[in-house]
Amino acid sequence: MSDRFLVVGGDAAGMSAAGKAKRDDPDREVVVFERGDWVSYGACGLPYYVKGEIADVSDLVVVEPRKLVEERGIDLRRQQEVVGIDPDRRTVTVEYDGERYEEAYDDLLLATGGRAALPDAPGTDLDGVFAVRNLEAGRALRSYVLHEDGGETATVPAVESEYGAAFRAHISEDDTEVVAVVGANKIGLEMAEAFVARGFEVHVFEAGPHVLPVFGPDVAGVVADHLRERGVTLHLDTTVERLDGEEGRVAAVETNDERTAVDAVLSDVGVEPDTELAASAGLELGANDAVRTDEFGRTDADRVYAAGDCAETRHLLTGERVHWPYALAANRAGRAVGRTVAGTPTPTGGIVGTNVMKAFDREVSRTGLDDEQAREAGFDPVSTTITTITRAHYYPGWSRIVVHATADADSGRLLGASMVGAEGAAHRINSVAAALHARLTVREVGSLDFGYAPPFGPVWDPVLLAAKALGEKME
Amino acid sequence: MSDRFLVVGGDAAGMSAAGKAKRDDPDREVVVFERGDWVSYGACGLPYYVKGEIADVSDLVVVEPRKLVEERGIDLRRQQEVVGIDPDRRTVTVEYDGERYEEAYDDLLLATGGRAALPDAPGTDLDGVFAVRNLEAGRALRSYVLHEDGGETATVPAVESEYGAAFRAHISEDDTEVVAVVGANKIGLEMAEAFVARGFEVHVFEAGPHVLPVFGPDVAGVVADHLRERGVTLHLDTTVERLDGEEGRVAAVETNDERTAVDAVLSDVGVEPDTELAASAGLELGANDAVRTDEFGRTDADRVYAAGDCAETRHLLTGERVHWPYALAANRAGRAVGRTVAGTPTPTGGIVGTNVMKAFDREVSRTGLDDEQAREAGFDPVSTTITTITRAHYYPGWSRIVVHATADADSGRLLGASMVGAEGAAHRINSVAAALHARLTVREVGSLDFGYAPPFGPVWDPVLLAAKALGEKME
Repeated sequence: MSDRFLVVGGDAAGMSAAGKAKRDDPDREVVVFERGDWVSYGACGLPYYVKGEIADVSDLVVVEPRKLVEERGIDLRRQQEVVGIDPDRRTVTVEYDGERYEEAYDDLLLATGGRAALPDAPGTDLDGVFAVRNLEAGRALRSYVLHEDGGETATVPAVESEYGAAFRAHISEDDTEVVAVVGANKIGLEMAEAFVARGFEVHVFEAGPHVLPVFGPDVAGVVADHLRERGVTLHLDTTVERLDGEEGRVAAVETNDERTAVDAVLSDVGVEPDTELAASAGLELGANDAVRTDEFGRTDADRVYAAGDCAETRHLLTGERVHWPYALAANRAGRAVGRTVAGTPTPTGGIVGTNVMKAFDREVSRTGLDDEQAREAGFDPVSTTITTITRAHYYPGWSRIVVHATADADSGRLLGASMVGAEGAAHRINSVAAALHARLTVREVGSLDFGYAPPFGPVWDPVLLAAKALGEKME
Repeated sequence: MSDRFLVVGGDAAGMSAAGKAKRDDPDREVVVFERGDWVSYGACGLPYYVKGEIADVSDLVVVEPRKLVEERGIDLRRQQEVVGIDPDRRTVTVEYDGERYEEAYDDLLLATGGRAALPDAPGTDLDGVFAVRNLEAGRALRSYVLHEDGGETATVPAVESEYGAAFRAHISEDDTEVVAVVGANKIGLEMAEAFVARGFEVHVFEAGPHVLPVFGPDVAGVVADHLRERGVTLHLDTTVERLDGEEGRVAAVETNDERTAVDAVLSDVGVEPDTELAASAGLELGANDAVRTDEFGRTDADRVYAAGDCAETRHLLTGERVHWPYALAANRAGRAVGRTVAGTPTPTGGIVGTNVMKAFDREVSRTGLDDEQAREAGFDPVSTTITTITRAHYYPGWSRIVVHATADADSGRLLGASMVGAEGAAHRINSVAAALHARLTVREVGSLDFGYAPPFGPVWDPVLLAAKALGEKME
């Protein structure tokens, strides 16, 4: 019998690992345990499903891994939950349909993912309070706010059978008119767009001084103006102290100085690694309580790996271990572990902190370190913010784009950037990300040979212009 | 009296140099000689002016340099042509209104630009044959093909007074129905789009086996299909042997095996450096007969610089001197010379060969070396072409994007890429350009932390996917 590679969790990291291991070593026995119904689902698409741009939640599922399972012979076991690990005996305990059984492994990957955090306030257990990290939760949210009853929603499982995610499915007969978003992060703002598109009144509560904390104040200010233009009410510097209910359903958000009547609440106050299984097996935890891993995704237990939203990764600019729950990093880390267990040791890769999103009609992006992060990491940050245009000044349809860039005054290295604009901010950030990986200086970035054509930018691309401005400031 | 910095030519390189020198050294006397009427015009916008998306040719002119001239006190002398240089005496001879006078310089910049080449065939002197490199030529072309007479066109100057550009202005009273584009390069295809938008029948003649020679066959094939869908007739592997005229006006394009009746011809067979002045002063010429320059833009004459489309630059991947007539490179080189003459020696920067364009509804881009260029430069090229999607598979509006990537099998370094798609190909190429500057390997490119959000790409960005596929091929 060949070595057995067991994978716990069938989303981004888990399926990437299983697929890669099977591809590189077709004779390898690969088993994936998925406690839910879906594998390789695109949870990032849930806001657009709630918005109505995607008709059915099953459209989010990636087709290729299912084909992979069928064609390549991965042993996919749905509705089967791994509830225990014995690293000494190299076995896992699996719960299936009320029964338990053991399976032996030679290599084991924990890809248990993350779960949406809830505000630290009473009332989060009320009906109508959602924190969305998987398809079932997304479906429950849409059903609740749109009063879709029966049909799809009949299959919404009870919360306790799910990843520990904190949604509470409930089909209402009342009109839902006001939705609160707690936490002005990426998913929260994407959901705000969806709720506005559905005709709801939307209130966003953010404890910090601006929306999108990791995107920096200059870019966040432009986004905030745009959100307000689209009718979103922002409550900044505002901590939610209590969710108030009536007959078990959420009815109001209470802060230190106001009470807002609401019909539903969507929480996006952060993603926590789901490490119950790892912790119960005695594995070491690290940053943000994610599973501690080395550069190959190895935990402190022999031949036990962790990858994706449940595990640590490395920040390439600071050298520190971080918890960075993003789809690409999860896919990449999973794939690397698959390659490693198939015989080619492969680092899981690090991150520089790239993040992009759409907020209504604005593209918003960031990468690297902002001024504060740079200072904390021991750099001497200097930064600038420029406003320029997205196309040649004479080309129809140009609009403004704002770029904030941060550098290290000592070394001259570029450390990070953030951008916002009606177009061109999402893809442009990748050129900065590449420059950060390569540790280019501001002067080097300013000298990059970027493309120019009138429909796509001014002669000096916004990234180059920002580097030029920052370079002049540093002279 | 302060040092005098004389600049010959008031477009991208010249005005960038003048502006930067004046900014860094406000007391410096800076004189710009421009033989035409316009400075800092955006010749790259001419196709969109011909198409009708830009109403007036003066809209193309960049406003800032005019303000700079007025506010900073650059001595701009329009309609004044420098016709001679005496490097020993450090003087130039200027022709103005039929008279000649001398001016002394301490530093001199030649920024005389380039001119559009004409096909090497009889008949290019016929009326209705255009090669567009400046605003007057663009205006003449539009007037000709649209039969706009009087008004704007009355100001079209005779050809001989212009940069040596080879257009022949002529106002016709007949219907213009068929336009031939000779040379399927960037401007030619942009003009083809404009002509189709104007309702003309368009024939493109290209001597090579595919359109857009520098973009490689895979990307070019996708562009060719799109051009044909939009009604453009392509004549590939077809050399124009003669332009046939009737009563002095072009009437037909003749190739080795066919004759196509046409009403106008637009040539885009290349850009030649305009070096008559440099050559007459005995300056050394180099690649493509452009003015030979060192890394600071210095010619072989003391304190005489050259920058922009008339001068050489360096290809950073091959180390060779090249002629690369592009707006960004010209701006950058001019700015560097301005900084240098103001006291801070600054390299003019090199290029990696980035080029982007819009062809109807396709974004087309390339950077670095293609397979053939890589082989010529002594690399051992290995390449692959992938097709993927521009947004998450479930996000509305996704379309296909084709990426061709080339690497060096020996070192593993990425050497170049080209792309085509309905969206996302223009800005994505800049991330590759940054990677090329930093000499990243294919493996390193595949591990870059790029952004992901469903509206802007799949989890594995097309650039990452291409690097992954190429990496697997190289294993």
